[in-house]
Amino acid sequence: MTAPDFTPVVLEQLDDLLIWRRDVRHFDTRALDEGLLDTLLDRASLAPSVGNSQPWRFVRVISPERRAAITAHVEAENARAAALYCDEARASYDTLKLHGLEQAPEHIAVFCDTAPHEGHGLGRQSMPETLAYSVVLAVHTLWLAARARGVGLGWVSILNPIAVAQILDIPRQWTFIGYLCIGYPLDANGVPELERTGWQVRIDPMKTRFTR
Amino acid sequence: MTAPDFTPVVLEQLDDLLIWRRDVRHFDTRALDEGLLDTLLDRASLAPSVGNSQPWRFVRVISPERRAAITAHVEAENARAAALYCDEARASYDTLKLHGLEQAPEHIAVFCDTAPHEGHGLGRQSMPETLAYSVVLAVHTLWLAARARGVGLGWVSILNPIAVAQILDIPRQWTFIGYLCIGYPLDANGVPELERTGWQVRIDPMKTRFTR
Repeated sequence: MTAPDFTPVVLEQLDDLLIWRRDVRHFDTRALDEGLLDTLLDRASLAPSVGNSQPWRFVRVISPERRAAITAHVEAENARAAALYCDEARASYDTLKLHGLEQAPEHIAVFCDTAPHEGHGLGRQSMPETLAYSVVLAVHTLWLAARARGVGLGWVSILNPIAVAQILDIPRQWTFIGYLCIGYPLDANGVPELERTGWQVRIDPMKTRFTR
Repeated sequence: MTAPDFTPVVLEQLDDLLIWRRDVRHFDTRALDEGLLDTLLDRASLAPSVGNSQPWRFVRVISPERRAAITAHVEAENARAAALYCDEARASYDTLKLHGLEQAPEHIAVFCDTAPHEGHGLGRQSMPETLAYSVVLAVHTLWLAARARGVGLGWVSILNPIAVAQILDIPRQWTFIGYLCIGYPLDANGVPELERTGWQVRIDPMKTRFTR
């Protein structure tokens, strides 16, 4: 078989996709088009995984009570996190919008099956964390597939994995990876929101490269 | 600002990219074109990261002694992993080619800075593992950017993180994420190698979806 040739135009558009893929916190409350969420999750399932173990478990949270409980939990965790900052940093932290849980039409909680039958243990004996990493690869695939279709995704990480598992009544064998807000974005930008707000700029990529 | 519109043609090509992005273990020994590795690592730096912390540290391993030491270590770990399988599974395991360390022109060891200044701790107080996840997002970005340019990547995970850090003389503050073989692939396929060899098929994506 021969892989498709990606033309310079496609490469440019892939670069655009990487640049415009943002962590979205400002959502339109409008529902996603019919069938679109399934399309996105189908694409996510094309992600690589250790030993082809496909350990991702996507939980669509539709219960208003559970969504409210998650939102309240994130707010509480965020208050605890904010308390770690002082003075100017605290003032700056308080201005940040860190999630769009109340507006996003879709909430997807993502878990990792820590003992999947699939893959038969291949490739993860010395690094069991590669199972969780495989799920992260699927989240990123979902993120890019969404952005390419005009859909925004925000990854909420300010929560306690055990609390999330309790709120959502999740099997013990699954470990929590991330909580995703998904919906049509209210704005678009090629620059990270945390850079625009002055929290953290992009560093020179050369500073992350070394040789041995 | 307005995000670029991705046309149906681009969406199809993105799907192709996701389908043809494979874990490559069969490499041409030919060096990458001049400047290409830098281009790929620049793209990887566009990945999302918690609090914009950009904790990825890419170590290009060029020393023949160190490359040989890593390869020997992977072979030893692989022999230990193989010993866990019996009978047919063992016979099947022994036929698998799990890495292209000896042929790939580029070896990139990827680490996570566990206490980066960047990001000022934002978003990771309750889930410090999101730093490592951010590095995984960068690896996946690198993977897609490579495949779009006809370059293959194989993620080697059959090794011990502490041994790798010792062989490569890595700062204590960095944790090992994955070891990447990069080069021009000898073959191309839209089906995972582990599926073609009968080790593990793709499962029905619907089986990984739940509601709450």
